[in-house]
Amino acid sequence: MNYKMMGRFIAQILAIEGVFMLPALSISLCCGDGMAVKGFLITLAILFGIVVVLSLLCRGAPSAFRAREGLVCVGISWIALSLVGCLPFYLSREIPAFVDCFFEMVSGFTTTGASIVPSVEDLSKGILYWRSFSHWLGGMGVLVFLLAFTGEKGQGFTMHLLRAESPGPNVGKLVPKMRKTAAILYLLYIALTVLNIVFLLMGGMSVFEAVCTAFGTAGTGGFGVKNDSLAGYSSYLQNVTTVFMILFGVNFSCYYLLLIRQWKSVFRDEELRLYFGIILGSTLLITLNIRGLYGSLGETIRHAAFQVGSIITTTGFATTDFDLWPSFSKTILLCLMVVGACAGSTGGGLKVARVLLLFKGLRRNIRQMLQPRKVELVRNNGQTVDQKILDNTNAYLAAYVIIIFAVFAIISLDGFSAGTNFSAVLCTFNNIGPGLEAVGPTCNFSLFSPLSKLVLSWAMLAGRLEIFPILVLFSKSTWKQR
Amino acid sequence: MNYKMMGRFIAQILAIEGVFMLPALSISLCCGDGMAVKGFLITLAILFGIVVVLSLLCRGAPSAFRAREGLVCVGISWIALSLVGCLPFYLSREIPAFVDCFFEMVSGFTTTGASIVPSVEDLSKGILYWRSFSHWLGGMGVLVFLLAFTGEKGQGFTMHLLRAESPGPNVGKLVPKMRKTAAILYLLYIALTVLNIVFLLMGGMSVFEAVCTAFGTAGTGGFGVKNDSLAGYSSYLQNVTTVFMILFGVNFSCYYLLLIRQWKSVFRDEELRLYFGIILGSTLLITLNIRGLYGSLGETIRHAAFQVGSIITTTGFATTDFDLWPSFSKTILLCLMVVGACAGSTGGGLKVARVLLLFKGLRRNIRQMLQPRKVELVRNNGQTVDQKILDNTNAYLAAYVIIIFAVFAIISLDGFSAGTNFSAVLCTFNNIGPGLEAVGPTCNFSLFSPLSKLVLSWAMLAGRLEIFPILVLFSKSTWKQR
Repeated sequence: MNYKMMGRFIAQILAIEGVFMLPALSISLCCGDGMAVKGFLITLAILFGIVVVLSLLCRGAPSAFRAREGLVCVGISWIALSLVGCLPFYLSREIPAFVDCFFEMVSGFTTTGASIVPSVEDLSKGILYWRSFSHWLGGMGVLVFLLAFTGEKGQGFTMHLLRAESPGPNVGKLVPKMRKTAAILYLLYIALTVLNIVFLLMGGMSVFEAVCTAFGTAGTGGFGVKNDSLAGYSSYLQNVTTVFMILFGVNFSCYYLLLIRQWKSVFRDEELRLYFGIILGSTLLITLNIRGLYGSLGETIRHAAFQVGSIITTTGFATTDFDLWPSFSKTILLCLMVVGACAGSTGGGLKVARVLLLFKGLRRNIRQMLQPRKVELVRNNGQTVDQKILDNTNAYLAAYVIIIFAVFAIISLDGFSAGTNFSAVLCTFNNIGPGLEAVGPTCNFSLFSPLSKLVLSWAMLAGRLEIFPILVLFSKSTWKQR
Repeated sequence: MNYKMMGRFIAQILAIEGVFMLPALSISLCCGDGMAVKGFLITLAILFGIVVVLSLLCRGAPSAFRAREGLVCVGISWIALSLVGCLPFYLSREIPAFVDCFFEMVSGFTTTGASIVPSVEDLSKGILYWRSFSHWLGGMGVLVFLLAFTGEKGQGFTMHLLRAESPGPNVGKLVPKMRKTAAILYLLYIALTVLNIVFLLMGGMSVFEAVCTAFGTAGTGGFGVKNDSLAGYSSYLQNVTTVFMILFGVNFSCYYLLLIRQWKSVFRDEELRLYFGIILGSTLLITLNIRGLYGSLGETIRHAAFQVGSIITTTGFATTDFDLWPSFSKTILLCLMVVGACAGSTGGGLKVARVLLLFKGLRRNIRQMLQPRKVELVRNNGQTVDQKILDNTNAYLAAYVIIIFAVFAIISLDGFSAGTNFSAVLCTFNNIGPGLEAVGPTCNFSLFSPLSKLVLSWAMLAGRLEIFPILVLFSKSTWKQR
């Protein structure tokens, strides 16, 4: 293991976190929240200390960097980010228990949006900003940021990290250089976020709320600044958020293709078609199922579309308490939780691309059973899919199912209902946020025991980093010296 | 498609069903249940008619028989068996609605044991016998019976059918001839069943109850003859049933190996070790979790072991209402429902062998991620596992997950809780029987709508036949002429 390189790398990641904490500190200073200012300052001092020590210890690292180290590095960085990032919550005493602070921060960085705060309106503005900003940073990935905008070089190095942090079965390059690809993705991300803020401001939102809401939307996170999530906002603001949630659930390479005017390949993209197909279909089914619950058809469609967009993109905002909807609608939402957004977006879940590959692989398998001697290939967007990608997708599903059952078993020790536990697992592991029953949109995760909170935090990290970077930390072969 | 061969084959299957209906008819005659006698007689007449017409139509069938036809044939035979087998329920008017009769019969043949009968003690003896016998026949498989004891020849033919009907990722031959293998399996099955009956009789059970209970145990079905399942029986009878359920969940080739004194290969069998490991571990955890609910430690262990044995072997008998147990115990049972029994046993579920392969495949995948250039192989019992079997196992999991979500969505239209629906799907698809909440051990499936009952029947068939023989019936490529 190239520990020096990893240490240097983690130091850089933490330095970036420190820089991004400055706006939150400024807000706390402006609002005169003494405790919050103290919290941020102490955290920054600790961060500074860690970064200096790590940088000194890890001077002169050899530049060789293998897949193994990339995976481990991503896993450890995210844990470090969360451990340090949650200090302001704890030091400002706005969230009393450290486990809760850690859960909240992991939920932020992994863009889950599951909260243990009973009343977010009681939090100070600086803390609220930091909480929402963590979604934005976690959405596209802090390592991707590092690669995009700092001087870090080395093609193999960059590839390994980007592969480990970016969602989806197959990370494509937009341009030959990986670093430039990362920069393009981030610029698109920033542009879309700014556009979202502008649209929210046009609806009469305050600047602070618009920025925080846009962060939650862009990262498909779901932390809001109001206790009732988005239920109290105008229908214009809700609709804007619906549209932007869905846009942030699209593979960002589609936007790049649009920019370079490759309309056809975007239009023909099978994942994108399926994604919009699922959104339309689910909205339609739910609208039919909940008809009569709201005043008008327009309102019904608005709530259905918002919740569908919020859940499939794994954002987790709510405009209504969908736990009160009929079973069928809730089951559709549970299914959407598992499907998730497009690969290469900021959303979580299995990803539409993987679902597509699983279906295609299954169809191939059935055909092969019917005609054992014929070789069947899986095609996607007209191109043959490499058997390795199919194998990885299948392994991903296996790991996914095993983790869901394991986490489900552990948190059931707390004694809540199967519906609560199952939806809590799906909602954290798929980085959604609110679930059903006792963790529904009007409730929060504070009822769970510290053990369950830690396990659910682990699930959130595993979900955001697509399992393997977190799983390898627990594998003997990772730590064996070779 | 070789329709003639398929027709001749289905005629034979139905003829066997008719022969096996005779004991039930005799019981009804002895008890003087006029309506039941009428039901069986009319059914036999219909059966006779179908068999004669099919045999005449399908004379001179070409003997070529491909994988495709084997799969389709198995799927159709099981549907035909259930459609005809449920007629006595309907014609005797003991179960009024036809959908309910079909559900009950499918539940019988697939060894699920989920019932729509509110009070089984109200059913007549002949009907009860037929209901329980369907478990026994469905457990080892009616096609396997046909191959074992009738003159049907043709090696390819036999292989295709046996592969499609037998559970597990890889159907092994015990002896070079497939037909002899089938006969050995059935003889072992009969011997174990007789042994079970003897042990039950020694506990003072009546002959009728002992035979019916042994059928339910042998097929890992779960239909009982008492409303409270096995709760009213002595602890001796409960313990005997625990042991036999677990024995019937073992791969039958292990018994053959024991007979030919290959102790070592049985003792070293990884699936068998894991199976007993899971049983011991789960019993221990549940005993700890439910301590204090029953009078003594012995009673607690007895109930824990019985329920664990009943659920992992997918039998579904109950000695206590485990829906009242704490969440953690219920979650363990839910996990066991998915794991299921050993491959090559009469039990359902994913099968321990598949779970083992999924874990091993995952471990291989993680290792390969850590060292992309090293080729890692998956080994089972010291032998390299063919990549094709791994692919099939993965495809199986994908199909399994997709079907669970699809059925879950459809039955949620009825409006029951997520816990009820989810456990209903797991319990039918894995051929267990009772679930949790509204379909718990003290309840039954009669509350569902006819649509849900049909979908759940479909799930039971898909679960028993390991998905593909049922799935191919819905695939376009199956019916394409080539």
